[in-house]
Amino acid sequence: MTVSAGNRRQDMKPVFSLPIRVYYEDTDAGGVVYHSNYLNFMERARTEWLRSLGFEQDELTHRDGVIFAVSAVSIEFRKPARFNESLEVTVALGRRGAASLTLHQEVRRAETLLASGEVRVACLDAQRFAPVAIPARVSEKMLALYGEAPKVARPS
Amino acid sequence: MTVSAGNRRQDMKPVFSLPIRVYYEDTDAGGVVYHSNYLNFMERARTEWLRSLGFEQDELTHRDGVIFAVSAVSIEFRKPARFNESLEVTVALGRRGAASLTLHQEVRRAETLLASGEVRVACLDAQRFAPVAIPARVSEKMLALYGEAPKVARPS
Amino acid sequence: MTVSAGNRRQDMKPVFSLPIRVYYEDTDAGGVVYHSNYLNFMERARTEWLRSLGFEQDELTHRDGVIFAVSAVSIEFRKPARFNESLEVTVALGRRGAASLTLHQEVRRAETLLASGEVRVACLDAQRFAPVAIPARVSEKMLALYGEAPKVARPS
Amino acid sequence: MTVSAGNRRQDMKPVFSLPIRVYYEDTDAGGVVYHSNYLNFMERARTEWLRSLGFEQDELTHRDGVIFAVSAVSIEFRKPARFNESLEVTVALGRRGAASLTLHQEVRRAETLLASGEVRVACLDAQRFAPVAIPARVSEKMLALYGEAPKVARPS
Repeated sequence: MTVSAGNRRQDMKPVFSLPIRVYYEDTDAGGVVYHSNYLNFMERARTEWLRSLGFEQDELTHRDGVIFAVSAVSIEFRKPARFNESLEVTVALGRRGAASLTLHQEVRRAETLLASGEVRVACLDAQRFAPVAIPARVSEKMLALYGEAPKVARPS
Repeated sequence: MTVSAGNRRQDMKPVFSLPIRVYYEDTDAGGVVYHSNYLNFMERARTEWLRSLGFEQDELTHRDGVIFAVSAVSIEFRKPARFNESLEVTVALGRRGAASLTLHQEVRRAETLLASGEVRVACLDAQRFAPVAIPARVSEKMLALYGEAPKVARPS
Repeated sequence: MTVSAGNRRQDMKPVFSLPIRVYYEDTDAGGVVYHSNYLNFMERARTEWLRSLGFEQDELTHRDGVIFAVSAVSIEFRKPARFNESLEVTVALGRRGAASLTLHQEVRRAETLLASGEVRVACLDAQRFAPVAIPARVSEKMLALYGEAPKVARPS
Repeated sequence: MTVSAGNRRQDMKPVFSLPIRVYYEDTDAGGVVYHSNYLNFMERARTEWLRSLGFEQDELTHRDGVIFAVSAVSIEFRKPARFNESLEVTVALGRRGAASLTLHQEVRRAETLLASGEVRVACLDAQRFAPVAIPARVSEKMLALYGEAPKVARPS
């Protein structure tokens, strides 16, 4: 529906973007970036996105006792990236649950979309690795910046 | 439907399994295996599965001119693996397209399921990175071992 | 001197060897194993060598409160290893200090030496990361298996 | 000798420095940066150093037919780096041979030296992986920026 589509798009804005350079360590003998390294790039972008919101993950662990852990990924690899290329890795906030966030992430080389997908991160107690509520200072900041989370049929 | 479910399950058998030991290089400061390393473990298992079928990937590149590249992943990370644990990584053949295969893969520690999901690999021309048909000797071997690919609504 | 040379060689025996297969994750766009991954291979071999002596590193941390950390490496990369090759990675015990061990390690493909060098590991308090004596059960096992450590001018 | 020491120090200047952030992917279950990842950091810094001199390594391969490969490393790991820290990785040009360069590299966190050592890179024919002379445009640029290579007893 138009309205919910509008809500969703609004919710996904603004999009955070991190430039990443491809080094030899990122490539494989096929001459391209090894697929699992896109997940590393995506996590670097999520880390910098959280930092841009004012949250340092080591502080979240030491002060709030939580750790954000990847609980699911669904990614399409469309075109290869190669050694020495300059990429952009984006983060857009999607669904927000009490104890998890879903991020839509893309890897681009200029206008070309190389990889895209969803990454769900769970907020875990840093000792027991059990799900706990996202710290209030984080969820309040997201509410202030992104507005209400959209109503979704399938909460995460 | 019962029959197609039966077909699908039959198609997924037999399941190949590779033992993998967790080393320090696989872990992160959270004390657990870093999420993208499960994708590396899964590729090791696919490589050994292909080898068990009689196919060496370097030969597939040099003789057949093809390379298998991961084109999509959809994985749930359920429980953490830790340093020094012994894991099993499985490969079960799912959908077969003319130029792609979908594998169902799991990572287990004894009876405990740690991660599971689908990995789609595309058969690419090793030079141009464009999709090409899976070499006949590979698809014939799979036909002989696994029978007809199940009819699926959404071919990959 | 002949005798100390003889002592040193004797001290380095027996040599432990771990077979390692090269997967795509290990290679780079040059078509060969990325140099830092040899260090990972060498650590896998040290881990399996310690296991062969009866020591699990997670137990060494939980029971003895120590962690072995690499404090220095000196490695020559002589010839490249490539995707899908079968390698052997060796461990020979060299100098033994109160709080450190030096291992001579090699990476071979059949008779061909690909990389070799020295890796010094320090025994650290797992919490404070400060040097501590190697647990007695470890040093006694090494004494039983390898004899007295050779007298060296430059103890580590 | 004072003069050669002076020459050597002069030759090592200016020092190039690259800021690097520690992400989860870089750490291990000991809570610190995994040792072989310092080698990756050092290669990133060499790549950016070459770029700062006007040389793109993909161009060096495509136009000049060469690849720089690490042929030896000798590194001391002094203090651990941890998740989320900001590091500086430096590159100082040391010995210059016809077909190799030796770089002195350090990893620092503010004033604290974490790791340091020598990395020798060999200039190889990109196809045959055999040593070849460093392209004239590279060696001339280094001569212009760094002056004559110091006379050394043990050329590399």
